[in-house]
Amino acid sequence: MEELKRRILSDAMVGEGDIIRVDMFLNHCMDMDLMERMGAVLAKRYRGERVTKVLTAESSGIALACFTAKALGVPVIYAKKFQTGYIDPDVYSAETHSFSLDKSYTLRVSRKYLTEDDNVLLVDDILSNGQTMLSLLELVSKAGGEVAGVGVAIEKSMREGGRVLRRMGIRVEALATVEAIEHGQIILAD
Amino acid sequence: MEELKRRILSDAMVGEGDIIRVDMFLNHCMDMDLMERMGAVLAKRYRGERVTKVLTAESSGIALACFTAKALGVPVIYAKKFQTGYIDPDVYSAETHSFSLDKSYTLRVSRKYLTEDDNVLLVDDILSNGQTMLSLLELVSKAGGEVAGVGVAIEKSMREGGRVLRRMGIRVEALATVEAIEHGQIILAD
Repeated sequence: MEELKRRILSDAMVGEGDIIRVDMFLNHCMDMDLMERMGAVLAKRYRGERVTKVLTAESSGIALACFTAKALGVPVIYAKKFQTGYIDPDVYSAETHSFSLDKSYTLRVSRKYLTEDDNVLLVDDILSNGQTMLSLLELVSKAGGEVAGVGVAIEKSMREGGRVLRRMGIRVEALATVEAIEHGQIILAD
Repeated sequence: MEELKRRILSDAMVGEGDIIRVDMFLNHCMDMDLMERMGAVLAKRYRGERVTKVLTAESSGIALACFTAKALGVPVIYAKKFQTGYIDPDVYSAETHSFSLDKSYTLRVSRKYLTEDDNVLLVDDILSNGQTMLSLLELVSKAGGEVAGVGVAIEKSMREGGRVLRRMGIRVEALATVEAIEHGQIILAD
């Protein structure tokens, strides 16, 4: 998606290691017009797949999940990573690990909202090592549902998440792909 | 907002104490059409107030904040409650406490995204004791900005949050007001 690529090249900053800082428009201060257009593009790519729900994880994927789901006409479920607010004790759960923070989490979704009739689109802001996506996949599998595919704003293809998921036969759609960071510069695919 | 009131009366469940479970449409599995319409109503109420940003806290207010901000044509900032993903170390921070979970958190917003030029609408899903709103208010005050008001889907008026905020001179708009829970029944205002 050209608009996102331009935005990454103009605004994103490179942090320590290969961290791409997109907190100025994607995952802390969020540009709603861009978010709506990204959701529309992801929805278009998955239209015809009979997606019944969009699933994301707290918190940075929620906005993109919302606009994608709105365009598809389906609900959003966000898997809880933290003990906040009410959640039914009867959940599907899956462990996940953040390499960047060296921290493990349990993702939980109420059993009521994922069923064997669901065909689920997994959405997040960034796909890197794929740990969150693999855990969301596990939640859907535990519910007996199908995964229609994965949709993310940014895939970091120098990390293994996208490759692992595609090797599993899962469709992965990224609106922009970061191939490398060289001398502090972000190198995008195409 | 009649649609939300009907939805509460038809779907919401009463948990222990005075917990209102709206996880089936508002804050776990989320109805995007309802969410968009709620955002449009909140935006309409604050149009003319020259809102520059919508501020919410992780995670349950993010969806409503997004659709409200989209309708107002402004960005959303979500204050981080947890150490996830990248955040600039240079933040405004405020302590908050969840009575229902008996847990304290530090809310953090990068200094870059709140300034003295901002007129901020605070959005969340539910207003109960008002602890989250008071902390968001503190973040805006620390940045030297103004608070245009508070917008929530549900205010629990048997709790003190709304009263405290209004006594401070802050405009509070709720799309539905729960006055009481009696014998397991939710009693709405009007």
